[in-house]
Amino acid sequence: MLENDLYLRAHRGENVERYPIWLMRQAGRILPEYRAVRAKLSGFKELVENPELAAEVTIQPVDRLEVDAAILFSDILVVPDALGLKYEMVEQRGPYFPQTIRSADEMNKLDPHADVKDRLSYVFEAIQLTKKGLENRVPLIGFAGAPWTIFCYMVEGKGSKTFSEAKKLLYTNPSLAHELLGRITDFTIAYMKEQRNAGVDALQLFDSWAGILSREQYAAFGLHYIRKIAEAFEGFPFTVFSKGALGSLPDMVDIPCTSLGLDWNMEVEYARSLVQESKTLQGNLDPCMLYADKKTIEWETKKLLNSFKSSRHIVNLGHGVYPDVDFEHVKVLINTVKNYEKKYS
Amino acid sequence: MLENDLYLRAHRGENVERYPIWLMRQAGRILPEYRAVRAKLSGFKELVENPELAAEVTIQPVDRLEVDAAILFSDILVVPDALGLKYEMVEQRGPYFPQTIRSADEMNKLDPHADVKDRLSYVFEAIQLTKKGLENRVPLIGFAGAPWTIFCYMVEGKGSKTFSEAKKLLYTNPSLAHELLGRITDFTIAYMKEQRNAGVDALQLFDSWAGILSREQYAAFGLHYIRKIAEAFEGFPFTVFSKGALGSLPDMVDIPCTSLGLDWNMEVEYARSLVQESKTLQGNLDPCMLYADKKTIEWETKKLLNSFKSSRHIVNLGHGVYPDVDFEHVKVLINTVKNYEKKYS
Repeated sequence: MLENDLYLRAHRGENVERYPIWLMRQAGRILPEYRAVRAKLSGFKELVENPELAAEVTIQPVDRLEVDAAILFSDILVVPDALGLKYEMVEQRGPYFPQTIRSADEMNKLDPHADVKDRLSYVFEAIQLTKKGLENRVPLIGFAGAPWTIFCYMVEGKGSKTFSEAKKLLYTNPSLAHELLGRITDFTIAYMKEQRNAGVDALQLFDSWAGILSREQYAAFGLHYIRKIAEAFEGFPFTVFSKGALGSLPDMVDIPCTSLGLDWNMEVEYARSLVQESKTLQGNLDPCMLYADKKTIEWETKKLLNSFKSSRHIVNLGHGVYPDVDFEHVKVLINTVKNYEKKYS
Repeated sequence: MLENDLYLRAHRGENVERYPIWLMRQAGRILPEYRAVRAKLSGFKELVENPELAAEVTIQPVDRLEVDAAILFSDILVVPDALGLKYEMVEQRGPYFPQTIRSADEMNKLDPHADVKDRLSYVFEAIQLTKKGLENRVPLIGFAGAPWTIFCYMVEGKGSKTFSEAKKLLYTNPSLAHELLGRITDFTIAYMKEQRNAGVDALQLFDSWAGILSREQYAAFGLHYIRKIAEAFEGFPFTVFSKGALGSLPDMVDIPCTSLGLDWNMEVEYARSLVQESKTLQGNLDPCMLYADKKTIEWETKKLLNSFKSSRHIVNLGHGVYPDVDFEHVKVLINTVKNYEKKYS
């Protein structure tokens, strides 16, 4: 059905002619056509909540960069928003929640009857419009934030270097923490199911703040819930990306997902030794590498490709592409991957 | 000579009656007497540059918390300041450098004749006053930022989640990056030698931003310079703390320092398996643990102590103590360590 299904075949461990590539944050400020859309709007949330425009910017990198997959333009924080915890996106500063959840009373203010179909209809509409616009060229990836990361924002109320308020709750009221994580998890499963119903071809969980927990705490407060979500999608192409959680990789091997995302601190060889051929690995180039000259980008990309000892790889950065990167540099990365002759099959 | 030299004996791998303990940022906002001193001053830098007051707040945690070592109250950014790159400490925001170094021209503006004794006389004076005030009760630790972390601030000009400007230079102009790192390294060696001359009993390098580099980059741009500094102090009690660099621990085993600092992502058992009995390990409690109730703090502390399979340990947090922690909770941690019966000798 899809003209280019390399990304999906790589997830399934099938043979692929070449390694597929896409980039986290490929739909975004690196593209002038994105900035043009964004300039017409008053804020980031307006774009997230507008299905036509969200679909438009989702498709832009497929046209311009010719990546092997599209990822829906959206925000992980639509989940707390749908649960009744509204947020604002403050220019240059990031998200801000006027209300936070640090007590049972505050948690009880969340909407117990939040209906995902109703609350996040704009996301599902954007998915349908994107699928139409993509005309079966490449698969569409849907996503959500992992429960721990969503929890961080709901408790802390904003970005933080330490997320010490969020972590504090794990020590002062672990049962409340688990209750909140459980609610986020249930809602996230419903949300991702609706994304699948709306037409996404694959799903990804982003755990941006995985790295601030010890291995033991991440097992209990992070991976426990990620596993629940992954179990609800067994058999479907599903990626778990736990940024910063190098020490927890051994605990992720038996999560029933098809792929693990790697940041640049997670060495490919080490991750491969853990998962063997059971999972596809995605990553793990340093986003700053794209600031280098084109020759260096080609050289670094080939170095990564040469390090692969398996067919089960999808090339990506180890984090979202930085907004001030020249998209011509991104093209060098993409073309290097597309022109590379695979050694393993 | 010292009444309590547990900290130094632990560094040397000698037998100790009990595990020593001190806390990163123990001289600081957790103590009301620190806040009282600070309230009288217009800014943080004023305190750093005032030898009498710096000595006073350095000694406060020895009086109040009865820790086994004092660490000089100072700032890692006195080094770029002394090299000619002035910074301001902006309340609630952190350090800010009006000038940054991103080109050879900018680097040439650094002062080539910066004399450490002259420029940082206030630090050495603070050390002498502290030693006097401590009256040989506990050892005094001097410190500096590791070259990579100092480089981050000098290039980026302020704190950052990604330090993408600093990392960019590693890709766009690696030779300039190495030149700057080399200059920081030379100056840091001179600085730490003067600290030793002024009377510190031990030294520590803090590499706060080690974790943002891949293992390969950290070896080249981080550890290479740390090793040079450690070599200049062989035989002297010397700690290297590379926060976030779990993946680089294997590369740190043969650095000629007496101790490695561990954050809470670096498991003690794993670190011990790497260093065997060649180094003392410091750490690695999660600072957020101190938000828990006293019983939990005691339990978590004992869990760490029970995990030790060697005498070569110094108890600490895996990061600086957070300013809003109740110092009575810190006392529980300290007393638990002091009352714990060591199993290994």
